[in-house]
Amino acid sequence: MRNQRIRELRSLMKERGIDIYIIPTSDYHQSEYISDYFKVRQFITGFTGSAGTAVVTMEEACLWTDGRYYIQAEKELQGCEFKLYKMGMDKVPTVREYMKEYISRHTEKYNKCIENDVINNVENHTGQSSSPKICIGFDGQVLCARDGVDYERLAEENHACIYCEEDLIDTLWDNRPPFPTSQAYVLEEQYSGKSTADKLREVREHMNKQKADIHVLSDVCDIAWLLNIRGDDIRHVPVILSCLLMDMDKCCWYVKKENLNQKVLEYLSDNHIEVREYNCIYQDLHKIKGKKLLADLGRINYRMKSSINTELIDAVNPEQLLKAVKNPTEVENIKAAHIKDGVAVTKFMYWLKHTIGTQTITEMDAAKKINQLRSEQEHYIDISFDTIAAYGENAAMMHYEADESCNAILEPKGFLLVDSGGHYLEGSTDITRTFALGELSKEEQKMFTAVVRSNLNLAAAKFLYGCTGENLDILAREPLWELGVDYRCGTGHGNGYLLNVHEGPNSFRWRIQENIPRAAVFEEGMITTDEPGVYEEGKYGIRIENELLCKKGIKNDYGQFMEFETITYAPIDLDAINVEEMTLKEKNSLNDYHKKVYETISPYLSEDEREWLKDITRKV
Amino acid sequence: MRNQRIRELRSLMKERGIDIYIIPTSDYHQSEYISDYFKVRQFITGFTGSAGTAVVTMEEACLWTDGRYYIQAEKELQGCEFKLYKMGMDKVPTVREYMKEYISRHTEKYNKCIENDVINNVENHTGQSSSPKICIGFDGQVLCARDGVDYERLAEENHACIYCEEDLIDTLWDNRPPFPTSQAYVLEEQYSGKSTADKLREVREHMNKQKADIHVLSDVCDIAWLLNIRGDDIRHVPVILSCLLMDMDKCCWYVKKENLNQKVLEYLSDNHIEVREYNCIYQDLHKIKGKKLLADLGRINYRMKSSINTELIDAVNPEQLLKAVKNPTEVENIKAAHIKDGVAVTKFMYWLKHTIGTQTITEMDAAKKINQLRSEQEHYIDISFDTIAAYGENAAMMHYEADESCNAILEPKGFLLVDSGGHYLEGSTDITRTFALGELSKEEQKMFTAVVRSNLNLAAAKFLYGCTGENLDILAREPLWELGVDYRCGTGHGNGYLLNVHEGPNSFRWRIQENIPRAAVFEEGMITTDEPGVYEEGKYGIRIENELLCKKGIKNDYGQFMEFETITYAPIDLDAINVEEMTLKEKNSLNDYHKKVYETISPYLSEDEREWLKDITRKV
Repeated sequence: MRNQRIRELRSLMKERGIDIYIIPTSDYHQSEYISDYFKVRQFITGFTGSAGTAVVTMEEACLWTDGRYYIQAEKELQGCEFKLYKMGMDKVPTVREYMKEYISRHTEKYNKCIENDVINNVENHTGQSSSPKICIGFDGQVLCARDGVDYERLAEENHACIYCEEDLIDTLWDNRPPFPTSQAYVLEEQYSGKSTADKLREVREHMNKQKADIHVLSDVCDIAWLLNIRGDDIRHVPVILSCLLMDMDKCCWYVKKENLNQKVLEYLSDNHIEVREYNCIYQDLHKIKGKKLLADLGRINYRMKSSINTELIDAVNPEQLLKAVKNPTEVENIKAAHIKDGVAVTKFMYWLKHTIGTQTITEMDAAKKINQLRSEQEHYIDISFDTIAAYGENAAMMHYEADESCNAILEPKGFLLVDSGGHYLEGSTDITRTFALGELSKEEQKMFTAVVRSNLNLAAAKFLYGCTGENLDILAREPLWELGVDYRCGTGHGNGYLLNVHEGPNSFRWRIQENIPRAAVFEEGMITTDEPGVYEEGKYGIRIENELLCKKGIKNDYGQFMEFETITYAPIDLDAINVEEMTLKEKNSLNDYHKKVYETISPYLSEDEREWLKDITRKV
Repeated sequence: MRNQRIRELRSLMKERGIDIYIIPTSDYHQSEYISDYFKVRQFITGFTGSAGTAVVTMEEACLWTDGRYYIQAEKELQGCEFKLYKMGMDKVPTVREYMKEYISRHTEKYNKCIENDVINNVENHTGQSSSPKICIGFDGQVLCARDGVDYERLAEENHACIYCEEDLIDTLWDNRPPFPTSQAYVLEEQYSGKSTADKLREVREHMNKQKADIHVLSDVCDIAWLLNIRGDDIRHVPVILSCLLMDMDKCCWYVKKENLNQKVLEYLSDNHIEVREYNCIYQDLHKIKGKKLLADLGRINYRMKSSINTELIDAVNPEQLLKAVKNPTEVENIKAAHIKDGVAVTKFMYWLKHTIGTQTITEMDAAKKINQLRSEQEHYIDISFDTIAAYGENAAMMHYEADESCNAILEPKGFLLVDSGGHYLEGSTDITRTFALGELSKEEQKMFTAVVRSNLNLAAAKFLYGCTGENLDILAREPLWELGVDYRCGTGHGNGYLLNVHEGPNSFRWRIQENIPRAAVFEEGMITTDEPGVYEEGKYGIRIENELLCKKGIKNDYGQFMEFETITYAPIDLDAINVEEMTLKEKNSLNDYHKKVYETISPYLSEDEREWLKDITRKV
């Protein structure tokens, strides 16, 4: 069936004179997670992972994906024409390099044909009578503007051209899921901590600084933050698919009418926010003339970019930094959310430790249990991402999710890794614990202890204002690097407030890459996950994830010192730790943390649970 | 007298229509250290520090310098018109900002004048009859090309113009020191480890990669490395002031005839290196047409840049990385140099510890003593920089140098900081030790212990290939940051082989600044200093400096791990350490290091010295 789809796509490509068709994984807003409506790449390839790019030519069908998905993609591509390109592996070309090579190879071929033909008989699809050009096709609405501009340059430099007016897959896709239109709702100021009016004022101050007259937004999280409005258009990301255009006086929200109810309309009207039809953003952008437009080319689509007729200031959306620095109300709320979360995780651990070996538990049972405990908390809205409950070697796959076809039964030995989180009115959480279910190997204990040390060492950092995640990352990594072990991902990421649990611009990571913006300087109020791990294929996976709130420390002649407060409250499994491998400082850190966990969580537990918590948070 | 010089300069400026005259600290080659001939900024300001920029307008005379020199500059500027701008302090404008403000302020004034005048009566110095322009002046031969291009842009954007054909100070400077013309000599292959032919081949490979036809060099250390030739044109930097132009076949060295003797000429001839007159570089650059020229705008002067008429590839000189990665012969030689150095420093420590309190020692005596001990080593050529021997609070000034007017007498208490190094045929060294001369305060002990921990922690780093000094720096800084203390400089720098002891592109530092190239990825064979410190104004200064050789560690599925070998061998003063504040791992590191020091250095000592060394390198 997938090969049939490829054939149909090629015939559409032929009709339009397209030689290379690119299918990224994205919606119209460059969202990290996408609604089913946008799962075009999955439709054509059958690969269900969250990241990847498909490229179809007349000769080949290829899929690029990263290290998280090598194994899964190989499995899912079986039986279809798609060939897997493992991004990041030695000698594997990037999509761009692949295209470049394709264009140059075929341009030569064309040119040879022309020598034999009469030149004027050949007309390429652009209607120009010059020599024919290789044509790169893609849906301009789903390609990131920055990539589109890059492909434009590639085309220009290699005498190729671009066709981006159509979503070719749409024609092939019977029973395509509907475009999402969930109900929008207002996030009250007791939760958001800042009014929309104040946020608009702050954004306008930034526009002023950057000498911008007008500002376009397409990032759904930036818009949700700015308008204090949430929805449910993307699974586990409580947002509304929409765009926004604002100048110094006016603010227009481009959104489907179906998303809005009377209460939201009144709220918008009170805030002088005009509502316009979702699709009008392109024509409205096109009409702007003689103004300086602030647009983040990494966060708008290529069709939007192509609609711009006025001077462009390409800069990161000011909303990115503004929403990453949580205001005091948000901080207090998020701490409250973490207490609820800690209660759920602690109760889960109690259940797990008391049930394992007495009745059958599968990975899916474990996930269901923790989701259930979380949903019982006040102001719970949703889980914040699909729960990962991975047993034994399954946990070595960082983004494993059990399903009917693969659902391990937990045995009273080895590790269960549970990575989960919740959306509450008080914010979003993301926490990982790895539990010993029984006997552990020496290696498992050693690695677990190293991961705990990593986690604690980063959390204990004291640093001068100005440091970024690239400066601090090694504090987490050193205990593992000393053992010749690494985790092939960053150490942590920012977390949204009732938004995407992956949020920039703060993060912990060490590689400084040329084309990727640097991690942000840590500001008071930023919250970043601290999640080192060890993943040994075919053996086990360990991860301990807490969230760290950045705070000001002492200030003196040397400058402003900064530090972290851990705001995740759940026990770290002492059954898996070899205390002898920890320094005194690390032991003190662990004891202090466990004391805080007990004090914070115990009031919400039953007598039995409390007794047990006392014991498992004992001093080491 | 200095005010008289300023008056004379202004009258020269007036004659030429110059409004702002910039005097950087540089020679024609953007060298860090400069010969007396080039001390133009010192001549006009009286400020003797190694870094700073003077700017003279009709209204003001200003000097910019950095934190190392605030105190010294304030003192030395007394009684003259120069006003001090403290670079890096809040709200202090940069030279560029100052100029921009000056230009815009005066352009307004001019425009006002013109409104009252008849426009055509006014002619600016360029001879054009348009409105008069503010003119920025400087000697194009001493300004870095990158700064020149920046000032060009500044001028363009602000309707100003540039005058750079003359060194105005030369006219004022009676008895200017002569242009340096020391004797060049060949560094034999047993020391350099690689022939000039091989080095030329490697550079040409890089040129090929960058699609360059021709390559110009003005960095005197890059040239010395490439040609395996050394000299003595700059105090303590054994190089010849010269330029070099090479393509795929030919290589021309632009050098003063006075620098060359018959042996060197023969060597050059054997290597097919053509000798051309030093000053011909400008006309020869000018003649190049239709080629791609690789030139590092940060390492050529503005006059050279202005002479270029062909396509420019502005990239870091490939020699920078090539010379930073020491070849195996160099590594072995450098280790041998460090043994000699360690013997000198250990003997100095023995002398110091046995002499303090029994006879009068001044800072200058101490410097003289260590210089003497170093000069007794085989193949010694020179000290590699002016020895810093700073007692007590003097050591809080990072770049303190005692002289007749300020030469403290050492007392049997507190710290003596000695930062010194040597040039040998086997390479250059840079080492700092801080010695307890008697009783110490609790704070002094605490800080000394923290500095030792900093030094050892960085040296013990294990890290994946790809890390830079920005990733690793915090390993050194964390023990001090935990105490709310910092040192206001990088943690370490690369070191040349019988060249400048400050060498890029490897370094340890944490601030990632936009306009400064990032520190290089650590490669096997790079040598970097590890020199954390604490500097408390009016109290004390502590610094411990070792050199670290980067080596490959284990390689596995996670990648290539890297580590350091400490190649400086001299005792760290146990009299100043509070062992209780060290972790077990740190104590082991210190013991391992001291064991190696004893084993390496003891064979070169007298019986008494050896007994004493045994004791002061004892296990803690």
